[in-house]
Amino acid sequence: MQFSSKLIEDAVKEMAKLPGIGAKTATRLVLYLLKQEEDFTTSLASALVRLRQEIQQCRQCHHYADSQVCSICASPHRNKTLMCVVETSQDVMAIENTGQYNGLYHILGGIISPMEGISPADLHIDTLLSRMPESEVKEVILAISPTMEGDTTAFYITKKLQAFPHISVSAIARGVPIGSELEYTDEVTLGRSIVTRTKL
Amino acid sequence: MQFSSKLIEDAVKEMAKLPGIGAKTATRLVLYLLKQEEDFTTSLASALVRLRQEIQQCRQCHHYADSQVCSICASPHRNKTLMCVVETSQDVMAIENTGQYNGLYHILGGIISPMEGISPADLHIDTLLSRMPESEVKEVILAISPTMEGDTTAFYITKKLQAFPHISVSAIARGVPIGSELEYTDEVTLGRSIVTRTKL
Repeated sequence: MQFSSKLIEDAVKEMAKLPGIGAKTATRLVLYLLKQEEDFTTSLASALVRLRQEIQQCRQCHHYADSQVCSICASPHRNKTLMCVVETSQDVMAIENTGQYNGLYHILGGIISPMEGISPADLHIDTLLSRMPESEVKEVILAISPTMEGDTTAFYITKKLQAFPHISVSAIARGVPIGSELEYTDEVTLGRSIVTRTKL
Repeated sequence: MQFSSKLIEDAVKEMAKLPGIGAKTATRLVLYLLKQEEDFTTSLASALVRLRQEIQQCRQCHHYADSQVCSICASPHRNKTLMCVVETSQDVMAIENTGQYNGLYHILGGIISPMEGISPADLHIDTLLSRMPESEVKEVILAISPTMEGDTTAFYITKKLQAFPHISVSAIARGVPIGSELEYTDEVTLGRSIVTRTKL
């Protein structure tokens, strides 16, 4: 692309580093910024910089937080007897968006993967266990990817949680996604959905 | 969307103001920024702010410029006997990308449109005419949209340029786009391409 302006070229290059933004889209966005008031760009830029500089990790659940403790952990309206264990902050957002869960979270920061050299010590499993004694948690819900690594991680955590006999451990249901057709569902999922059928 | 962080929410809101970026894409981009080094975000933000604050309009052709005169007008390697008249800076970039043109430009900033209340006085036609006496321009190429407003603008400029009898005026060719099929070309374009056929 020919811009005949170093300023435009630099801005396009920076924009195009974002995932899913090619040179063409980056150019379109940059030219759009040029057509808006200066405020538009400065307020976008400052929101991004403020975000990156001020964001913290919740010292309880490891979720993104504006202060030392995230708004979910700090909320008096959450059900503190439930704790959902997930891999990433994105998973928290996805579950929050369902509007179906009102308990606490704990973010592992990944899953056990010998292939990638990720051992239990690399994950926030120690802090999960250390939260238990002083918490009101009665049930831990494992919401971990249904892969071999995910199952290994779930198994490991379940074992560790046996140290707290009053806490029950569950996993989110696996089965045929709502709205999808049986015909196109993979065999493993379909097979498992029959084995773990629920009573109506 | 539930973010449980005002910082993330603000950044997503700002990102989602960009054209073609919805809430979902904005979230993905913002979470991507959080995973990168702080440098990534600050260098993106500063490129955008610098662009918006420092960009100027070339005082000769009205193209975006890093200083008072744009790099095209300032270049000693451009053919100063040719001047291409376009509506916007985007048109300049599009023509530059073809690699087929090495002359100068003049940006009108729009086209004559009585419906939208845009008269010749609202466009950079005065500066186009005032550039002529002291320039080496021998040919003005009109590269204006083939619409009724565009044709009106082209007609108006052609009339005005008659004050400079040594300057010839041309328009970019209209016809069937290369690679397209005759069958699917609209009647007006196809009809015109027969009338304005070129000798081989």
